[in-house]
Amino acid sequence: MQVRVVLVEPEHEGNIGSMARIMKNFGFTDLWIVNPKTQIGSEARAYASHADDILRRLKIVTTLERALKGCSQIVGTTAIPGQRPSNVLRVVLSPEEYAQKTRSSDERVCLVFGRESTGLSNKELDRCDAIITIPANKDYRTLNIAAASAIVLYELYKHMHSAKKAFQPVDSHSRARLIDYFEKLTRLIGAPSHRRTKAVRAFRNVISRGLLSNREALLLIGIIRRACCRTRTKIDEA
Amino acid sequence: MQVRVVLVEPEHEGNIGSMARIMKNFGFTDLWIVNPKTQIGSEARAYASHADDILRRLKIVTTLERALKGCSQIVGTTAIPGQRPSNVLRVVLSPEEYAQKTRSSDERVCLVFGRESTGLSNKELDRCDAIITIPANKDYRTLNIAAASAIVLYELYKHMHSAKKAFQPVDSHSRARLIDYFEKLTRLIGAPSHRRTKAVRAFRNVISRGLLSNREALLLIGIIRRACCRTRTKIDEA
Repeated sequence: MQVRVVLVEPEHEGNIGSMARIMKNFGFTDLWIVNPKTQIGSEARAYASHADDILRRLKIVTTLERALKGCSQIVGTTAIPGQRPSNVLRVVLSPEEYAQKTRSSDERVCLVFGRESTGLSNKELDRCDAIITIPANKDYRTLNIAAASAIVLYELYKHMHSAKKAFQPVDSHSRARLIDYFEKLTRLIGAPSHRRTKAVRAFRNVISRGLLSNREALLLIGIIRRACCRTRTKIDEA
Repeated sequence: MQVRVVLVEPEHEGNIGSMARIMKNFGFTDLWIVNPKTQIGSEARAYASHADDILRRLKIVTTLERALKGCSQIVGTTAIPGQRPSNVLRVVLSPEEYAQKTRSSDERVCLVFGRESTGLSNKELDRCDAIITIPANKDYRTLNIAAASAIVLYELYKHMHSAKKAFQPVDSHSRARLIDYFEKLTRLIGAPSHRRTKAVRAFRNVISRGLLSNREALLLIGIIRRACCRTRTKIDEA
């Protein structure tokens, strides 16, 4: 697993430095900043301490999309997973659940942290394949970004370095194929478009949470592809 | 378990505020400072954010012994567990090991964090019943005190609240219906029987591992049932 850390519009220089230090503490190096609202100078370097190499190599881009380029899995973070109807289908995981799930994947993961003041927008969260929320006291759920990132990267480090598991999770290519075929099936059977979007999202959620093995993915692809063919034949005949 | 957090000679005001915030995030309130090397004013309050109540109630003492009074278990933290002969007998635990061990104890625990620059002295560490060290990258093991305390208090919170889960998984009835429909689909599309058995097993595995919600299950049932109907129509026509 390769991990890129993306900060969206950070407002405080110290937090950028803290993030660099935490990344180095846990062996991550790839830091991207989207549209920083602060300079990145001596205060950032002071907070980074011995992680100034990560600050020197960080990339600054103007949009979130640019920072996500090349990543196969986008993971957002939020203190408030959202109870509104539109958010029902978000995959919300604790840092531990996420780390357990992905420790031996070959994904190129993008971990996205939001603004200190307002976090990630709903639109940004909807762009994510999964959302991490840190379990916390209901009286005050919002962690400082440095604390939150420390916890998330610690869990990733812990699980990546715990005993290796025999389990070989599905590679990103087969995972994408499986979801594509499912999407195709929803089209071929003529499901209404609003249900299709949600069903594909639900299917993707299950696959994302589910630690699917490659062998299992191929079996499912076999069935769903065959179902697509049978349905297509019918349409062709019609 | 009751937890007191003790900072020994903290040097930076911001870290005292950060500590208060992290404590409130994870439901701890009892903060003691031994011989602070900084004022505790507006910067501390800014970092504490909505945890200013914890700052207002913190206690300042002149020696570590005073801060430990009334506690039955003293737990220190260090980035370097120490390899010297005198340290062999120290009990060094990861935050997770410590949290697992003590989650249901009735101890009055004192969690001690050292100076930003030099940590806890050997004498102070020897005073502790156990030492927590956070597993980290060997190139840079020393976490900022705010990051370290976030991780330790998070692990304590997580294990103290681990029974409760927010997620509402699919009920057994919907789960069985979903798997039944998938099995039916494999039959209707005429997959070879040895593949059908394995594919159903793979699907069941994914559902079982995947923490499927009821809402997601209903969406998937909708699609697969529809796929079954479309395929059946074709068979009926044949």
